[in-house]
Amino acid sequence: MNLTKLEQIFDNLWPVNRSITGPGLRESLHIIQNEMPVDIERIPSGTQVYDWKIPPEWTIRDARLTGPDGVVYADFAENNLSVVNYSTPVDDHMRLSELDSHLYSIESLPDATPRVTTYYNRDWGFCFPQSIRDSMPKQGEYHAYIDSELDPSGSLDFAHGLIEGDTNEEILLSTYLCHGSLANDNLSGPIAMVSLYNQIKKWQDRRYTYRFVIVPETIGSLAYLNRYGGHLVDNVISGCVLTCLGGPKPSLSYKLSREGDSLIDNVIKYLSKIKSDRQISIRQFDTRGSDERQYCSPGFNLPVGQFAKTVYGEYKEYHTSSDDKQFMNISSVAESINEINQYLRIIDKAGLFEATIQHGEPMLSKRELYPTINSPNIDIRLPNTDSTRDQPRILDMMRLINFADGNENLIEAARKYEIPPHRYISTVELLLANDLLRYCTDKS
Amino acid sequence: MNLTKLEQIFDNLWPVNRSITGPGLRESLHIIQNEMPVDIERIPSGTQVYDWKIPPEWTIRDARLTGPDGVVYADFAENNLSVVNYSTPVDDHMRLSELDSHLYSIESLPDATPRVTTYYNRDWGFCFPQSIRDSMPKQGEYHAYIDSELDPSGSLDFAHGLIEGDTNEEILLSTYLCHGSLANDNLSGPIAMVSLYNQIKKWQDRRYTYRFVIVPETIGSLAYLNRYGGHLVDNVISGCVLTCLGGPKPSLSYKLSREGDSLIDNVIKYLSKIKSDRQISIRQFDTRGSDERQYCSPGFNLPVGQFAKTVYGEYKEYHTSSDDKQFMNISSVAESINEINQYLRIIDKAGLFEATIQHGEPMLSKRELYPTINSPNIDIRLPNTDSTRDQPRILDMMRLINFADGNENLIEAARKYEIPPHRYISTVELLLANDLLRYCTDKS
Amino acid sequence: MNLTKLEQIFDNLWPVNRSITGPGLRESLHIIQNEMPVDIERIPSGTQVYDWKIPPEWTIRDARLTGPDGVVYADFAENNLSVVNYSTPVDDHMRLSELDSHLYSIESLPDATPRVTTYYNRDWGFCFPQSIRDSMPKQGEYHAYIDSELDPSGSLDFAHGLIEGDTNEEILLSTYLCHGSLANDNLSGPIAMVSLYNQIKKWQDRRYTYRFVIVPETIGSLAYLNRYGGHLVDNVISGCVLTCLGGPKPSLSYKLSREGDSLIDNVIKYLSKIKSDRQISIRQFDTRGSDERQYCSPGFNLPVGQFAKTVYGEYKEYHTSSDDKQFMNISSVAESINEINQYLRIIDKAGLFEATIQHGEPMLSKRELYPTINSPNIDIRLPNTDSTRDQPRILDMMRLINFADGNENLIEAARKYEIPPHRYISTVELLLANDLLRYCTDKS
Repeated sequence: MNLTKLEQIFDNLWPVNRSITGPGLRESLHIIQNEMPVDIERIPSGTQVYDWKIPPEWTIRDARLTGPDGVVYADFAENNLSVVNYSTPVDDHMRLSELDSHLYSIESLPDATPRVTTYYNRDWGFCFPQSIRDSMPKQGEYHAYIDSELDPSGSLDFAHGLIEGDTNEEILLSTYLCHGSLANDNLSGPIAMVSLYNQIKKWQDRRYTYRFVIVPETIGSLAYLNRYGGHLVDNVISGCVLTCLGGPKPSLSYKLSREGDSLIDNVIKYLSKIKSDRQISIRQFDTRGSDERQYCSPGFNLPVGQFAKTVYGEYKEYHTSSDDKQFMNISSVAESINEINQYLRIIDKAGLFEATIQHGEPMLSKRELYPTINSPNIDIRLPNTDSTRDQPRILDMMRLINFADGNENLIEAARKYEIPPHRYISTVELLLANDLLRYCTDKS
Repeated sequence: MNLTKLEQIFDNLWPVNRSITGPGLRESLHIIQNEMPVDIERIPSGTQVYDWKIPPEWTIRDARLTGPDGVVYADFAENNLSVVNYSTPVDDHMRLSELDSHLYSIESLPDATPRVTTYYNRDWGFCFPQSIRDSMPKQGEYHAYIDSELDPSGSLDFAHGLIEGDTNEEILLSTYLCHGSLANDNLSGPIAMVSLYNQIKKWQDRRYTYRFVIVPETIGSLAYLNRYGGHLVDNVISGCVLTCLGGPKPSLSYKLSREGDSLIDNVIKYLSKIKSDRQISIRQFDTRGSDERQYCSPGFNLPVGQFAKTVYGEYKEYHTSSDDKQFMNISSVAESINEINQYLRIIDKAGLFEATIQHGEPMLSKRELYPTINSPNIDIRLPNTDSTRDQPRILDMMRLINFADGNENLIEAARKYEIPPHRYISTVELLLANDLLRYCTDKS
Repeated sequence: MNLTKLEQIFDNLWPVNRSITGPGLRESLHIIQNEMPVDIERIPSGTQVYDWKIPPEWTIRDARLTGPDGVVYADFAENNLSVVNYSTPVDDHMRLSELDSHLYSIESLPDATPRVTTYYNRDWGFCFPQSIRDSMPKQGEYHAYIDSELDPSGSLDFAHGLIEGDTNEEILLSTYLCHGSLANDNLSGPIAMVSLYNQIKKWQDRRYTYRFVIVPETIGSLAYLNRYGGHLVDNVISGCVLTCLGGPKPSLSYKLSREGDSLIDNVIKYLSKIKSDRQISIRQFDTRGSDERQYCSPGFNLPVGQFAKTVYGEYKEYHTSSDDKQFMNISSVAESINEINQYLRIIDKAGLFEATIQHGEPMLSKRELYPTINSPNIDIRLPNTDSTRDQPRILDMMRLINFADGNENLIEAARKYEIPPHRYISTVELLLANDLLRYCTDKS
């Protein structure tokens, strides 16, 4: 998926007013559905999901804050961040002093509009840059107008899709779509997911089944778990949340899952030790973050980590109108996508394998994987190949075969013997092609 | 329990002639019984306790060593250390050369009387300072006189008591009482136990049941195990021996239990890494020590460590008359008591807990534990509290809830996330008060 | 077994033409059988052993390469390395250019004849020093003559023997015998095995049963596993392959078994940390090596490591005629033998033990293993022994008794408490003699 295509999807999603429920969320999910096959499902407002309840569906049609001087200081039609998300309707005149507790701006970022939400408590408010707030007349009456609606018979919507692999074991990719016009956090995740769907679909082979989930953050993943949690617990062997994949940071980082030793965790730990231009770094598991907080709640404890580049909370533009397309940078997201695609390719070949010959070494020479003559001054090489490259390759083969007893993920052999990723992958493929390795599943 | 009270108990115990059996031991246990409710039990002499046998009960009425010059060189009436503990009766005249193998003094500490015992082999002797020994006439006959008795129909006595908690899981506190007039080793332990009993009794809540055991060392803990070992194995989740709690060393140390990873072990390991004025240090488990040697014998393998300050064998006054009240220092023991009380408070809140909501995060805002409005420039704070302090507190809550799957002691969360003890305790209390945590017991 | 005897066995084996099958192998095994009682068994050519097949038996009677000038450039009668091992018969005249791909020499070692084999692919060839090759006339016809035979109704032979111990648990010693006239790699192994057999036979006591296996490398150990693998899996608790035990390197190294934490692994890890003149070092497990590759294939995963001194592949004379008696050095092998004998002695006393008294400490004084009088200025000592030596010894006893719960090899106590080997061994013997320890087997 090229940059132009990515940018087009971004531009389609950008202006839509989104929340954790409502028509904007549905419209956004349909934009996604145009790019990858997903099912869209809904859960009625009022449904209990564990300790939470799906809130009424929020619709907003119009909103503005007009000053005593007739100036419109905040206008939903121009910027959907201008209204506190989930604001109740209001149509009232009041002095600035009364209004003050309903206004949000950031002194340290005087030109940015903050993103403010009040999902679970009835309230309303306007958001705008501090520079505008400073210009507001102190005297006279303001007109606060919000034409919104909280519908208790509405729903929460989410989307999900699958790419099937050779086995039912699943890799879960999850992202969220609920913030308004915000780029790094949030649109970088969904556009990366669409692109990864299309790349994974093109892989020549896939051991695992790939599950793609797009939900509003927190309440959406809780709703998803409520409906599909049992299936995920039975099938997901690794997963990741995609968030904040663009921005100025040079390279990706990965937040470990709660247990920290699943397939994806260990592959990324291994990769983080391999010298590379774009070396990925590791963040420890913690309870700040995105939907991995729900996937990794103790009752599910799913092996789900999180990829991010310019991480939430670590940049000043976070949750403000300054987190825009320029800040996010489509190219930066595209690089993240390519790296995550490569990591997933490795994960797909990094799980439990069993050597087909468990007793004694396999005889490699009869498969033309070992020289038929043994002499101290002949480099060990495969027939018809370049001798200087094959000596390590034969050793790699023997090491992976010896390691593959089905008890530990095969990537641990790469870690133990310091086999770099490209040699690891090509050796696994060579051994699979020669029927010397086979998949196996956790015996536990 | 104030210093004056502690000193009064010390002064009552000090002059009593004690051994591993006999009237002095019984009198000492009654002094304890006046300060805390304990049951006193006895095991008859001759009873087999594992590889050992309860010895005959020792009574001594009088003893002195008189020189050819009429000088009394050692006198039991003046110092109960003057006679080898468990001496058989003797009333005999002999020359110094014959007497020599029955005399004990220490060249390197010429003014101290050593403590010498012969519990399991019939023998007798006198102990005195080397300075006195040097003054004894070489010629003439000495009169060795010991009026003692070894009664095969006597008994060994011990005392024990309980403070009940919310659960039957027990914390064992054990100390010994058998040495004669020795302060750091031995009276610091029993006076600390009496004081800890009174402090723990006053705690507002107690998860665990606290067991207090006072026995003569070694044979007494063997006897106790012989009678109550099965119960201890079923119920004790952590314990400690109290010994040598005073003296000039500035801070306490803790000797790990045999397994080294029980609740108490891990709490103290965590505390030993937290910067503090009186940082506790860790000693590895070893087979030198006190009654933890019996509790930690492989057949019991109880999770019992040991607290000490100026450790046995590591000071020159050890097991001599110089280990007196001045050396021990009542204030030093009082400090140890306060610290151990604090450690036990933490241990009481450090065990296995389960979050009441295991699936997904609990919704904190509906419990007024999280702000209802979410904005990038509002510090996360609890309603009606100081915002600068609450951001870490909310994170602490979320971390402890996420950690509490009932599989690992909750203190490991404090260790992992480097939560200091006061914040840890207050967060656990807050979560318990909000029904977000509950006790659970080891599933294994 | 003295140096002269070792050298005599070496000299008997040296001239025999050996391969992985054939009369030379049989003759070599009979030479071994003269020195230690072993059974010699055979497996017919053509037998499938896991992924391999026993090849036809190879016999060679004569071979030479004669130049157009009548000079014999390679002569089997003079040096059995002159012919590629497993060469098919040939009697042909050809030019040097045609012959070239059948000739083997080493440019960097111009005076050495390489060892070349072609066990599983029909081929033939001659080996000689590069210096001779350089002198060969470029013009004219050469006569290549090899009088050999590959008999499909032959067999592969191997030898094995046992020394029984108190238990059926086995220590496996395995070496190979198939290379021609090569000293460090290969004859150092078989002569060490003969010598170790004779030393172990003389030990006063043996807990374990010792199994001695001599096979042709790779195919021989596969054949052995095919016949005895089930028995080995049930009984072998540790083992080692003996290879390359001489040469100029000053000290032995040990290659860990695949699991790396068996009895032998842990004993050698412990020894490698103890300061000593001939400190053994540790090599990690890998799939280069000798027959441990088969023993440690995942289906067997036997706890078998490998001892070597001047390690295969790490010296330039490896697999050439320069790996001769002078390079190997009989004294160097003799030193290795003595060290391995000592290591095995420790291993024999390093396994699972249970203290006979599990509840409470045993009363040592009634066994005369502890003083009957306890005084601060008397060194703790055993009755009638030197006091300065016995204080650590009593502590050693108490530590080993406390450790011996039958769950972990007792050597871990030596490692934990840093008890040196000689003190460890003598304490175990003392405790066994006093019925304070007993053998036990893995409960798992």
